[in-house]
Amino acid sequence: MPEFLKLLSPSQAMQNWLNEISSKNVFAEETLTTEANGRILFNDITAPHPLPQFSRSTVDGYAVIARDTFGASDGLPAYLKLIGEVKMGEKAEIEVLKGTAVLIHTGGMLPVGADAVVMLEHTQSSRQDEIEVTKPAAPLENTIQVGEDVQTDEVILKKGALIRPVEIGGLMAYGILSVNVVRKPRIAIISTGDEVVPPSTMPSIGQVRDINTYTLEALINEHGGEAVKMGIVPDDPTKLKQILAAALNECDAVLVTAGSSASARDMTSQVIDESGRPGVLVHGINIRPGKPAILAVCDGKPVIGLPGNPVSAFVIAWLFVPPMINRLQGVIKEPFQKQITARLTINISSQAGREDYIPAKITLENGEYLAEPIFFKSNLIFNLVKADALIFVPADANGLNAGDRVKIFFL
Amino acid sequence: MPEFLKLLSPSQAMQNWLNEISSKNVFAEETLTTEANGRILFNDITAPHPLPQFSRSTVDGYAVIARDTFGASDGLPAYLKLIGEVKMGEKAEIEVLKGTAVLIHTGGMLPVGADAVVMLEHTQSSRQDEIEVTKPAAPLENTIQVGEDVQTDEVILKKGALIRPVEIGGLMAYGILSVNVVRKPRIAIISTGDEVVPPSTMPSIGQVRDINTYTLEALINEHGGEAVKMGIVPDDPTKLKQILAAALNECDAVLVTAGSSASARDMTSQVIDESGRPGVLVHGINIRPGKPAILAVCDGKPVIGLPGNPVSAFVIAWLFVPPMINRLQGVIKEPFQKQITARLTINISSQAGREDYIPAKITLENGEYLAEPIFFKSNLIFNLVKADALIFVPADANGLNAGDRVKIFFL
Repeated sequence: MPEFLKLLSPSQAMQNWLNEISSKNVFAEETLTTEANGRILFNDITAPHPLPQFSRSTVDGYAVIARDTFGASDGLPAYLKLIGEVKMGEKAEIEVLKGTAVLIHTGGMLPVGADAVVMLEHTQSSRQDEIEVTKPAAPLENTIQVGEDVQTDEVILKKGALIRPVEIGGLMAYGILSVNVVRKPRIAIISTGDEVVPPSTMPSIGQVRDINTYTLEALINEHGGEAVKMGIVPDDPTKLKQILAAALNECDAVLVTAGSSASARDMTSQVIDESGRPGVLVHGINIRPGKPAILAVCDGKPVIGLPGNPVSAFVIAWLFVPPMINRLQGVIKEPFQKQITARLTINISSQAGREDYIPAKITLENGEYLAEPIFFKSNLIFNLVKADALIFVPADANGLNAGDRVKIFFL
Repeated sequence: MPEFLKLLSPSQAMQNWLNEISSKNVFAEETLTTEANGRILFNDITAPHPLPQFSRSTVDGYAVIARDTFGASDGLPAYLKLIGEVKMGEKAEIEVLKGTAVLIHTGGMLPVGADAVVMLEHTQSSRQDEIEVTKPAAPLENTIQVGEDVQTDEVILKKGALIRPVEIGGLMAYGILSVNVVRKPRIAIISTGDEVVPPSTMPSIGQVRDINTYTLEALINEHGGEAVKMGIVPDDPTKLKQILAAALNECDAVLVTAGSSASARDMTSQVIDESGRPGVLVHGINIRPGKPAILAVCDGKPVIGLPGNPVSAFVIAWLFVPPMINRLQGVIKEPFQKQITARLTINISSQAGREDYIPAKITLENGEYLAEPIFFKSNLIFNLVKADALIFVPADANGLNAGDRVKIFFL
């Protein structure tokens, strides 16, 4: 077990830990495509046919043979015989022959013989069965061809891809009404501490209500996991060991909010370390808030020991839980960490070697974000309620000055 | 009814339209706090008592009278008599008198008489009932006071506020297990077009499956609305009028994907305009894709006429639907439009006076985003599936050059 005082940077800690998580616990579940938004695809999906399945016009106009329009101009229009209309939603039965044109609407099927569409705006009509084309059309102009969007057997969606609204649209274009997605990882939450009581209880003097279980539950569910609340455990290693074993058995990952005191944290670390191989990988991260965080893997399943203070617990969970959920689902492409900058309104101090995440109020001024740090205590949850974002203070900074451009993360 | 050719900028169009939406259709609904993530609060919530309710230690150490430690140093420690321990979760019954100290853990209740806590690290213990303090504590040091987080009667959450995981934590700190939130706005989706068939149907040649209903449904639900699918209507003004009336009756807003041809769009605009006051406010926006979009308000309820092409429909909905849902819920603080920049990999052309939103693949290189535009056709949904983000080309740009820093929006 590593020493508490040998602190790793958050990204080193993250990497060491994610690497030990087993990739074998990814299971499929069938879901309606309409309910698949935000889920991860379990297998590749290939195209059973090309898309579009027939050539279409992209404008309102006339289907023509492009060559018939070459050289046309306002002064010297090309005269074409109007021989019919393609109705929307119907097969174009008429054939465009040399010197003829067919009226067509946006999305209509390109009739046989035609290889381009002249826009309505580039035509005139002096007689009922004739049009004058005043601008030449190039072959394929204003059309989409069979298979231009997707070819048969093309992989349209990859295993491990995130399903967004546009992917749902793509699936529907193929009439794929249900898909195999990755079953949501079940993440257990264990709250510990002799002083912690459920929110439904009126705390006696000396007790506090459980906050962490509920911020963590919302965070887990928001990021594609399924939170499983295991309740509150007193600062008792035997009881914690028991409930942790049950959680590891039922779930794919476990969050334990360690008691607040150093001895409670050491006890939590000890119990986690004894609950599976390789055990505790990281105890202590060079970060504020959240330094005493514990990262462990027990027989392939990730376990996080979170500080008991609600602000620290939230910041550590917000950093480590989403990548963990992605890893547990075999996500192929990590979502981009949104890089947003703001201008700092006042000086802030920080300790070199440590990354700081400071709650901040954000305002927009002349198209630029201003970040006003909230001087917080990590046990005051309403300090975080007042924040729009967290300011990132990198490890190599010795404080930051008013006016500096800083990286922020919206909450 | 404004002219189609008098195009407004997207932000002007948005403002004109949002201003006409009635603010009266905001209704309350009670929900469990655990299920309130992402919802909008219906009323102010005030604090029934201070938080914390008792003064607490923020470290592991000894509760003392600060004055007893003044002047203490390694060479000349202050000697204090150890008279007991505050157990976690229990009321501190013992009183700290001059010259005494009480063992206390992080989060423990500060005993009567004590006004500061000395960290364990700044003490030594040579005898069982005595500690040596080697560093002075200032009054209030390492403590949080009653009401330091929240005072009684303070408004802890405001009407119209978004409930995030941290707000859920704050509510739980008060044992507030259910809250009144704003009922989700019901947004009807009507798909039109003679060529459009449901995804469950095998389209004949000339027909296409309905994509828009499903991308819009996912988008609406993701942004806090409740999508109500009204089905597919042929290009027939009487039928459209009927179903639009039903949608306006049952729902709080309506999206109509207009047929693709100019005549179908004009018909849609006409029908919307006749369905309530003030009717169509904007028909045509200086934007690509999505120029033919229609923004209307019918008797206080917003109606959007979306282009039929799936890429155009999605981009317009992605721009206009989230602010509409916020307006319908009385959100007090518009979510920040995330300002993210990337470096363009190749030149792109654009037309001055028009805003362009161009699908792009994003990669990260040396801590900087690179945006590679996807040359798209607005009827090819898989062009959008390949995109991570949209590149924003401002109206005053005459194209952009490779290497330029551009604003991007992640999808």
